[in-house]
Amino acid sequence: MNKQIQFFLDEIESHIKKIPLDCEPKALYQPVSYCLGKGGKRIRPLMTLLACDMFGGEIKQAMPPALGLELFHNFTLMHDDIMDNAPLRRNHPTVHEKWDANTAILSGDVLFAISCQYISQVPDNILRQILDVFYKTVIEVCEGQQYDMDFESRHKVSAKEYLEMIRLKTAVLPAACLQTGAIVAGAENKDQEKIYRFGECIGLAFQLRDDWLDVFGQHEEFGKQSGGDIIANKKTWLYIHALQKGSDKQKHLLSEAYSDNYSAGDSEKVSLVKSIYEDLGISGIAQNAMKAYYDQAFNYLASIDLPDARKEDLAQLAEYLHHRKK
Amino acid sequence: MNKQIQFFLDEIESHIKKIPLDCEPKALYQPVSYCLGKGGKRIRPLMTLLACDMFGGEIKQAMPPALGLELFHNFTLMHDDIMDNAPLRRNHPTVHEKWDANTAILSGDVLFAISCQYISQVPDNILRQILDVFYKTVIEVCEGQQYDMDFESRHKVSAKEYLEMIRLKTAVLPAACLQTGAIVAGAENKDQEKIYRFGECIGLAFQLRDDWLDVFGQHEEFGKQSGGDIIANKKTWLYIHALQKGSDKQKHLLSEAYSDNYSAGDSEKVSLVKSIYEDLGISGIAQNAMKAYYDQAFNYLASIDLPDARKEDLAQLAEYLHHRKK
Repeated sequence: MNKQIQFFLDEIESHIKKIPLDCEPKALYQPVSYCLGKGGKRIRPLMTLLACDMFGGEIKQAMPPALGLELFHNFTLMHDDIMDNAPLRRNHPTVHEKWDANTAILSGDVLFAISCQYISQVPDNILRQILDVFYKTVIEVCEGQQYDMDFESRHKVSAKEYLEMIRLKTAVLPAACLQTGAIVAGAENKDQEKIYRFGECIGLAFQLRDDWLDVFGQHEEFGKQSGGDIIANKKTWLYIHALQKGSDKQKHLLSEAYSDNYSAGDSEKVSLVKSIYEDLGISGIAQNAMKAYYDQAFNYLASIDLPDARKEDLAQLAEYLHHRKK
Repeated sequence: MNKQIQFFLDEIESHIKKIPLDCEPKALYQPVSYCLGKGGKRIRPLMTLLACDMFGGEIKQAMPPALGLELFHNFTLMHDDIMDNAPLRRNHPTVHEKWDANTAILSGDVLFAISCQYISQVPDNILRQILDVFYKTVIEVCEGQQYDMDFESRHKVSAKEYLEMIRLKTAVLPAACLQTGAIVAGAENKDQEKIYRFGECIGLAFQLRDDWLDVFGQHEEFGKQSGGDIIANKKTWLYIHALQKGSDKQKHLLSEAYSDNYSAGDSEKVSLVKSIYEDLGISGIAQNAMKAYYDQAFNYLASIDLPDARKEDLAQLAEYLHHRKK
């Protein structure tokens, strides 16, 4: 990514390091510090800064809400990891694994409150607008997480339901990050709407790419297990479309593989499902869908009445996310 | 309680019923609805309305943040009950018992976000002040809960540490509720500070009374188990002061009773600890301490430059809390 983006990322990182977390009681704040210290791509606060910059706002003013949004994102990870029983996050033990579930609950709660404090550090005249976007987004993210959990125990999930779930769980937060930057810069409502939609499309494509990488990514290169979603019986975009397009026999095999009484081993299961995906050309179909979301995103970006040069950084970030390999 | 107070309580109840919670996904919102529908004394929102009324503000303007504070309180109950592994709340199964821990985590999170939305429904010119008080309080309540959990595994807890824990866990929220009402009414900073301190003293006395009622209350009358705190090895105000005042033999017996290898039954343990409390006159000492907090609270109230008639409702609420039997 270019120098400007790298500069913003460095700024974000140095501000995150300065968040005062060396507080008492230690058992409450150390897990917060641990969670924030384990990295992450910092894409969300970057989006806030880039949107602010694009609309000609002051980065300094966008930094506190940008940090707040990153803190909120980390709060969702802490709580989601409990619910998903995830042992690892960013190659380190999750908070509930390293400490326990109670710690992850309460440290998450305080992290949420701290995120609210940062988000409200904006000029008075935009405070309400910033809060309205933020609280609405928090509620939607919770709804998305609930749908995700609901879908685990459901037999059938339609493509439309799945897309709405990932829109809520994954896409509205980047969208809100961009809108927040736009609000700080004083962008008009119609432009706020456009940058929000841009973020939503990028977020949807981002999640589809996650689904795709899980099966078709170069796992050896990145030390990740191939087909983790398949092993966990996740009804991903790929699975749902394979179920739609498959022959009766393929449908039956897919359902069998995802049923509780499937008895073969994990790697056999991944091979079976992956081979059905390949027979049905699901990889290509998914890539087309991602491409369509990216095109839609770029249409929203193009429709904003600013010189192309101003949009370059955001376009570059979107390109990077589109082609990411992990 | 008087007609005015009853009117406010009815208003609060009818507004709580109108909070739109018949939303999708049901698995997220039903537990919220369940938790709010199981009653509770609604003391906290009442405090907001009474403080607003005392300082001559408009009740209509205080209602949304009052509701927000009650929602926040219910959020803390939902998460605390998971952490404390509590099976019952207000004589009904807790959310994590009726559903599961994941449900209680996520429904709690969305309830927190909804509480933020209500709290921010105040006029623009006081929004920041209201938020500053609220977020600070949320963080303190989390810190209090953490200290409470920390103390469980500690051998010694001083009276000072215990009081600071209950100040954070229990007392700052009523204090913030009162200050919020005062802010809505446009009270001066010095009066906001006084009403906050009044609430803090009431909150401390409230928790000491809880500790006292657990051992010395009329449990048969209210169908509650006597000595629940003793059975759970809670280092309450009573226990800490008995340890301080007791002879070496009494100290030894108390420590033994609270140790992991204490082998006698629950009712024997309660009898033993209670008899030591009685020998040491702990009940009277605790009642004096409560009385001192109430006196301090009334001093703060008296120091507010308003006619006594305006303070009557709040004084009556404080009296009621002072003498409550459950």
